[in-house]
Amino acid sequence: MKKQFVIIGCGRFGSSVAKTLYSMGHEVLVIDRNEEIIQAVAEQVTHAVQADATDENSIKSLGIRNFDVAVVTIGSNIQSSILVTLMIKELGVEYVVAKAQNELHAKVLYKIGADRVVFPEREMGVRVAHNLVSSNIMDYIELAPDYSIVEIATLHEWIGKSLRELDMRSRYGINVMAIKRGPNIDISPMATDSIEEGDVLVVIGHNDDIQKIERR
Amino acid sequence: MKKQFVIIGCGRFGSSVAKTLYSMGHEVLVIDRNEEIIQAVAEQVTHAVQADATDENSIKSLGIRNFDVAVVTIGSNIQSSILVTLMIKELGVEYVVAKAQNELHAKVLYKIGADRVVFPEREMGVRVAHNLVSSNIMDYIELAPDYSIVEIATLHEWIGKSLRELDMRSRYGINVMAIKRGPNIDISPMATDSIEEGDVLVVIGHNDDIQKIERR
Ligand SMILES: Nc1ncnc2c1ncn2[C@@H]1O[C@H](COP(=O)(O)OP(=O)(O)OP(=O)(O)O)[C@@H](O)[C@H]1O
Ligand SMILES: Nc1ncnc2c1ncn2[C@@H]1O[C@H](COP(=O)(O)OP(=O)(O)OP(=O)(O)O)[C@@H](O)[C@H]1O
Ligand SMILES: [Ca+2]
Ligand SMILES: [Ca+2]
Ligand SMILES: [Ca+2]
Ligand SMILES: [Ca+2]
Repeated sequence: MKKQFVIIGCGRFGSSVAKTLYSMGHEVLVIDRNEEIIQAVAEQVTHAVQADATDENSIKSLGIRNFDVAVVTIGSNIQSSILVTLMIKELGVEYVVAKAQNELHAKVLYKIGADRVVFPEREMGVRVAHNLVSSNIMDYIELAPDYSIVEIATLHEWIGKSLRELDMRSRYGINVMAIKRGPNIDISPMATDSIEEGDVLVVIGHNDDIQKIERR
Repeated sequence: MKKQFVIIGCGRFGSSVAKTLYSMGHEVLVIDRNEEIIQAVAEQVTHAVQADATDENSIKSLGIRNFDVAVVTIGSNIQSSILVTLMIKELGVEYVVAKAQNELHAKVLYKIGADRVVFPEREMGVRVAHNLVSSNIMDYIELAPDYSIVEIATLHEWIGKSLRELDMRSRYGINVMAIKRGPNIDISPMATDSIEEGDVLVVIGHNDDIQKIERR
């Protein structure tokens, strides 16, 4: 089902959201007060309009109330972010996502009606930190407060062993969900599959158990 | 093994990387030219120093060459980001991660020796866009070019059925890796487990197969 999205503010985060939604076949209006930014993104979204989003008349004249989802990505100016979020909620946009600078900003956004608040830089900071800590952890995703999915480069001692022989579940308490091998990925690995040099294992487990492998 | 990290620039991304590494027990030096930022982060890292990172003498006097990993998170000023990355690589830091604004910036960073370039806002933009497209997809992670892990809210028709009855593998081509229920998560769901209202399924699959559920 095709949906109508309006992205307010087109910095690095906003433009990525906008281009991705458009490439998935949705209708995307982008608003930014910077004319150069609007020209650069125009070909990659449905409509791109240069306007100050804090100006209620401009926003109204763009028919914002008819959009299914608005994403407010104004970053550095907290006051504008709050003003715009409040305004579009009052205009009747059903689902509003807003980007926050910090916890206090997020609290205010929720209070005035934001349906979801995101912290793109903070979340990626946590991921990059985990990736850096161990040379064999290649990607890290928090699933629940204590559980994660990580990509682990094959340890030397694993090469040639089958998943049954490795028995990650009882040895480390983690489950192997997929094996990446070159450009291929096997999302239903079997107990008899053997690990080859260069394989990357996608595993799920409790952070304490994963850290035992991270710390090796 | 405790490692030594230096984080250059302490905006939203840099401070998140720094705090996470410190909370994992590593030694973390933070450098930012903004005194307020340095004061705010000081208690949450090993050392925080106010300095302009483009000033070679300041950087040298901090003994940067002895660090295992440097993360250059200077964002808006591309010229400074490039200058600093070049300088710390020349000083002999083994592994340098740098944050880029765009592809061209990334290319230059790799040319001058960055070991890894990250695009935090862009990557989160892609994730948030996927989460928004369907009301039942709650989180989305790209695993390989065509494969993803997503969190799916339980569809009404799934309630009360066991995983064996649902048979996601043959019906949708995806595998259920975990079930989130309230604050708990089961990372080894069994075929006989029944889905309850409010459950969130963590599944892995080909993007085309996942999109069939996203589009419902
Ligand atoms: N009142 C406004 N009306 C329209 N656009 C705005 C307004 N205020 C800011 N913007 C635009 O929002 C975009 C994002 O703002 P800014 O660069 O301050 O945030 P940021 O968090 O640093 O962005 P990112 O990290 O995503 O690149 C910019 O392109 C800016 O021109
Ligand atoms: N030459 C420099 N020396 C030290 N710190 C610097 C230098 N240039 C920028 N910084 C610091 O780097 C941090 C990040 O820079 P900036 O805010 O421009 O990037 P950003 O990409 O918008 O950040 P983020 O999105 O992570 O919040 C800021 O705290 C800034 O003070
Ligand atoms: Ca790593
Ligand atoms: Ca910024
Ligand atoms: Ca940013
Ligand atoms: Ca959703």
